[in-house]
Amino acid sequence: MLVVKKFGGTSVANKERIYNVCRRCAESYKNGDDVVVVLSAMGKLTDELIAKAKDINPNPSKREMDMLLTTGEQTSVALACMAFEALGIPAISLNAFQVAMHTTSAYSNARLKRIDTERIMHELDQRKIVVVTGFQGVNKYGDYTTLGRGGSDTTAVALAAALKADACEIYTDVDGVYTADPRIVKKARKMKEITYDEMLDLATLGAGVLHNRSVELAKKYGVALVVRSSLTNEEGTVVKEDVKVERMLVSGVAADKNCAKISVVGLSDKPGTAFRLFDALSQANINVDMILQSVSHDNTQDIAFTVVGDYADDAIKVIEDNKTRLKYEKVELEKGVAKVSVVGAGMMSNPGVAAKVFECMYNSNINIKMISTSEIRVTVLIDDKEVEKAMNAAHDIFGLED
Amino acid sequence: MLVVKKFGGTSVANKERIYNVCRRCAESYKNGDDVVVVLSAMGKLTDELIAKAKDINPNPSKREMDMLLTTGEQTSVALACMAFEALGIPAISLNAFQVAMHTTSAYSNARLKRIDTERIMHELDQRKIVVVTGFQGVNKYGDYTTLGRGGSDTTAVALAAALKADACEIYTDVDGVYTADPRIVKKARKMKEITYDEMLDLATLGAGVLHNRSVELAKKYGVALVVRSSLTNEEGTVVKEDVKVERMLVSGVAADKNCAKISVVGLSDKPGTAFRLFDALSQANINVDMILQSVSHDNTQDIAFTVVGDYADDAIKVIEDNKTRLKYEKVELEKGVAKVSVVGAGMMSNPGVAAKVFECMYNSNINIKMISTSEIRVTVLIDDKEVEKAMNAAHDIFGLED
Repeated sequence: MLVVKKFGGTSVANKERIYNVCRRCAESYKNGDDVVVVLSAMGKLTDELIAKAKDINPNPSKREMDMLLTTGEQTSVALACMAFEALGIPAISLNAFQVAMHTTSAYSNARLKRIDTERIMHELDQRKIVVVTGFQGVNKYGDYTTLGRGGSDTTAVALAAALKADACEIYTDVDGVYTADPRIVKKARKMKEITYDEMLDLATLGAGVLHNRSVELAKKYGVALVVRSSLTNEEGTVVKEDVKVERMLVSGVAADKNCAKISVVGLSDKPGTAFRLFDALSQANINVDMILQSVSHDNTQDIAFTVVGDYADDAIKVIEDNKTRLKYEKVELEKGVAKVSVVGAGMMSNPGVAAKVFECMYNSNINIKMISTSEIRVTVLIDDKEVEKAMNAAHDIFGLED
Repeated sequence: MLVVKKFGGTSVANKERIYNVCRRCAESYKNGDDVVVVLSAMGKLTDELIAKAKDINPNPSKREMDMLLTTGEQTSVALACMAFEALGIPAISLNAFQVAMHTTSAYSNARLKRIDTERIMHELDQRKIVVVTGFQGVNKYGDYTTLGRGGSDTTAVALAAALKADACEIYTDVDGVYTADPRIVKKARKMKEITYDEMLDLATLGAGVLHNRSVELAKKYGVALVVRSSLTNEEGTVVKEDVKVERMLVSGVAADKNCAKISVVGLSDKPGTAFRLFDALSQANINVDMILQSVSHDNTQDIAFTVVGDYADDAIKVIEDNKTRLKYEKVELEKGVAKVSVVGAGMMSNPGVAAKVFECMYNSNINIKMISTSEIRVTVLIDDKEVEKAMNAAHDIFGLED
């Protein structure tokens, strides 16, 4: 069996943890598996490198930043191979040039285009564990690039796809994907299986276990992902296309507290009004999430939408800067709001889920400010003080604890 | 003019020094020069990386060690380019893969075979300062290698040769090559020019300014080297094939205190005796320096030689382990000895130098234990407590202060 195993920065933060990672991989190797390990930079090393750079130049070019940051994973893979050697396991480290990992040109936020497999396959054939730098690639100019947030997950999934691996195991500090965040919902239960689409919705909505780019990639290439703990031997959660267990109506509940609601009141009710508003925001690189457009009255309408909390003030500024062009009466900002989402592939064939969500919010006396739905998701915007109550209520009403 | 400028680890040890390096290079760039900068790892970073590695595995493989250490220079070049950007100077960093620097396969002690110049020339043509990692290369397996001690000097000289540079400037913490170590000989004088061969003898004999591999390479490709200070604007010393100034008899005096003398007494005077002795030492990777073979008497002879002080005990062990094969009466070790050498291309056509050296040692009441000479060098082995006296005496007798 060929397995790609990915470990994040906390899993290789010090000597003991590096040995822990290597011992786990050695077990699999001794069972006869071909093992490819993908590592991130150690603990806080990336942050330290960024601080070093900013001290030299507050606005370094992204190219040189990538040149600097890629030393982080290279340090991890070299040290891990030294630990493998000490354990008597043949291992070899490879960076993005050595593999080679071809990406698009964009420094700091590149996308993987193609991975050469010759070198890795050659080393696996020598019965070596191959330890590969996550997060980094090489672009058409022959320069280092990095893959942005969650980049090492993406490296692991892409490698698994290129090598036609039998499994891609993502080791984290949690032991799988839960029906809800166990810190908020006490009865939350670890799922054995979940579909790519459900995982994508949970990832986007703040479950935080896997970055959505890696899930998208896994879906595209049909890579079976396993999310499991780097500390325990528990089985973890499998993310794949078809889930064999009897389809639950709802598989999980997620929350995202980093939200703000913006209402633009008294916009003229003419064609192009919404376009001009959201175009101005997109020009400023502000992503808009839920959108609510009111029925018009007196030739005016109101438009409300949510943005990531950090961008709320920027969004307000953009709207106010465009006041003469947009023509509106006033703009209102509401912070302290949160999205709670119910996700489940089973709801595609069952239209009652949304109603049930509203019912349980009503029963819990929670005011719903906005609603948005997709084929496999129902999201409500509520006061962030009510997130815990709302999540537990939804978890209960859909019987997720069983 | 195309100039290669090399700065060592202390020159880039912190933010201020990195900016100091960049400002110097920017001056040259603004004068219209094409500037290639070669950097070592920052200050003690290489030592820290070695300590990290040894903590994980006391005997890491050289391949993984090189993989780890090469992150050091990559960090330097990325940070330096960020400083250039802050100064408004276009710059780009390149590592051994990007250049590419082809070396022999030997990890930790590779030799440069070939340097591709396309990428560097392309970047210079864009009027960028090109900042290259010193000390590192890539071997035929596509793996990182390092060049061993003094590696960054070698990188700079090899780059200057490959790029047909007009000059190769080696910036150090001294401002040039002196007629003797100024800490020992007060009247020591900085030389304006020195030949490759003189520099090689001085380097080998402990002047410590340039590593001899880089001088050999400079001689082979006729690269004019300039040794100068990274802190002052003084002119430094030019190292080249022909020195224009009227040939001095002697150009410098050097000392090496890390010496030990070993005497093997009562060896049988048969053919092959010396061969067996030095073969046993060379099998153990112990380099022998000065050799003195006595006239035989009673069918036995004595052989004395010097080794680097650190290897003295190993050498004694090798000789004692081979006692039955070598057949000798006893072996004696004398520590606390030092070599003092007088070097000068001018002595080739003037046979009186050796005699003058002996004369001044005699006048200073210094006992000479061994003598060795080459075309441009006279070396005497003396008690290390007399080094200062001997160097000053030699410096005086040859009138080096003028």
